[in-house]
Amino acid sequence: MLAGYDMTPPDPRAVRELRLEIEEFHAAYCWALDRGALEEWPDFFTEDALYRVTARENADSGLPVGLVYAEGKAMLRDRAFAIAKTQMFAPRYLQHMVSNVRVLTLAEPVRAQANYLLLQTLMEGPTTIHQAGRYYDTFSRVDGRLLLKERQCVYDTLLIANDLVYPV
Amino acid sequence: MLAGYDMTPPDPRAVRELRLEIEEFHAAYCWALDRGALEEWPDFFTEDALYRVTARENADSGLPVGLVYAEGKAMLRDRAFAIAKTQMFAPRYLQHMVSNVRVLTLAEPVRAQANYLLLQTLMEGPTTIHQAGRYYDTFSRVDGRLLLKERQCVYDTLLIANDLVYPV
Amino acid sequence: MLAGYDMTPPDPRAVRELRLEIEEFHAAYCWALDRGALEEWPDFFTEDALYRVTARENADSGLPVGLVYAEGKAMLRDRAFAIAKTQMFAPRYLQHMVSNVRVLTLAEPVRAQANYLLLQTLMEGPTTIHQAGRYYDTFSRVDGRLLLKERQCVYDTLLIANDLVYPV
Repeated sequence: MLAGYDMTPPDPRAVRELRLEIEEFHAAYCWALDRGALEEWPDFFTEDALYRVTARENADSGLPVGLVYAEGKAMLRDRAFAIAKTQMFAPRYLQHMVSNVRVLTLAEPVRAQANYLLLQTLMEGPTTIHQAGRYYDTFSRVDGRLLLKERQCVYDTLLIANDLVYPV
Repeated sequence: MLAGYDMTPPDPRAVRELRLEIEEFHAAYCWALDRGALEEWPDFFTEDALYRVTARENADSGLPVGLVYAEGKAMLRDRAFAIAKTQMFAPRYLQHMVSNVRVLTLAEPVRAQANYLLLQTLMEGPTTIHQAGRYYDTFSRVDGRLLLKERQCVYDTLLIANDLVYPV
Repeated sequence: MLAGYDMTPPDPRAVRELRLEIEEFHAAYCWALDRGALEEWPDFFTEDALYRVTARENADSGLPVGLVYAEGKAMLRDRAFAIAKTQMFAPRYLQHMVSNVRVLTLAEPVRAQANYLLLQTLMEGPTTIHQAGRYYDTFSRVDGRLLLKERQCVYDTLLIANDLVYPV
């Protein structure tokens, strides 16, 4: 568990509205990834955003820097471009299921968490569990829209290097 | 991706209310199927409804007609009756998980999408991923209730003929 | 299907608010279990609560008493303590996905159901489906908060004795 992710915020109504807005954010974010529109992915982040993917074992030990680390939207763009360009891996379909969204702070920057299940289908094959984990998010509101100021994806699943290529 | 499923509709409040209503629709629809009440299934559709189940590969290529195709509630009733009657397959439990609901148009006919994960348990066995995919829905409001005017289920998973017998 | 779980309640607005509140309950409850805070688990129940875990086959036959049965918060506390203390099993990560929440009665005690998917990851291994099933819940409101007066977990998956140790 990451520090601070067990708080209960005060105003249930406002928390609920924010939770629903965050669910809509997740649906849009995941849909960009699931349909392969990698070039849209950086637009869900602020200019100075942090993006990290970390094994739960490391996160629990207070070692939050994981195998994937990007700082700033430019780095996210480079990453998205590289993935889209190189096509080094077998084609596959990805699908995100997101549930159990929890809002942790109402005041900005908004902090929230959610459970994700990332399903993978290689061409002409069965669908398998690619990765299960939690999003630990910090949102800023820019021009009325929520954007990720920080997203830390903490995965339970044992992953190998190749599995980390695609954004979560 | 199906044409038109990347629009952003204008009124966030109204979209949210509609999204919540659609989630309730999914919960009721899936519960009818998951508890085996196949005879209730056609009642979630309008009289002139279209129901299709299509592989993602075909949908992406603009070939929306899939292995399962039903036009009109009478055809859905025939199908439900045939499945309930014949019992040709091994008994199994099915469970739907639905997430990432997105509303695409507020004006009727309402268009929306959602991710589904269909889990299957054969008697005395483990639970496996039977099918992962997306609903592309068009709803009409009839006597105040949302009904499906069109449901296209686009699945990622490689399926064989037998797997397509049960409604999604 | 359990008796009474196919009713449609009357007031859609109030049902929606209650559904959203129950979703928040599930997110908090599952987060306690998923992060291993077993000592918090009994606090989601009323003093006189019933907790049962039953195979679907038994539930469908009207045999609701399952392999796990606890009556009263004290028994839940004993159980949580025993599990936390003994550590008899290999370490593992658990993650709950909850969806398809349905409210069945507005009047107290509130009755509701939901689908759950419990994912399990053994250390350094893949993530697998541990259990899929449905919560059949009865809630009481105590000091403004929803608490479980009864939770019956009905699972589809074939389980062995060891799998039933951890709370669902």
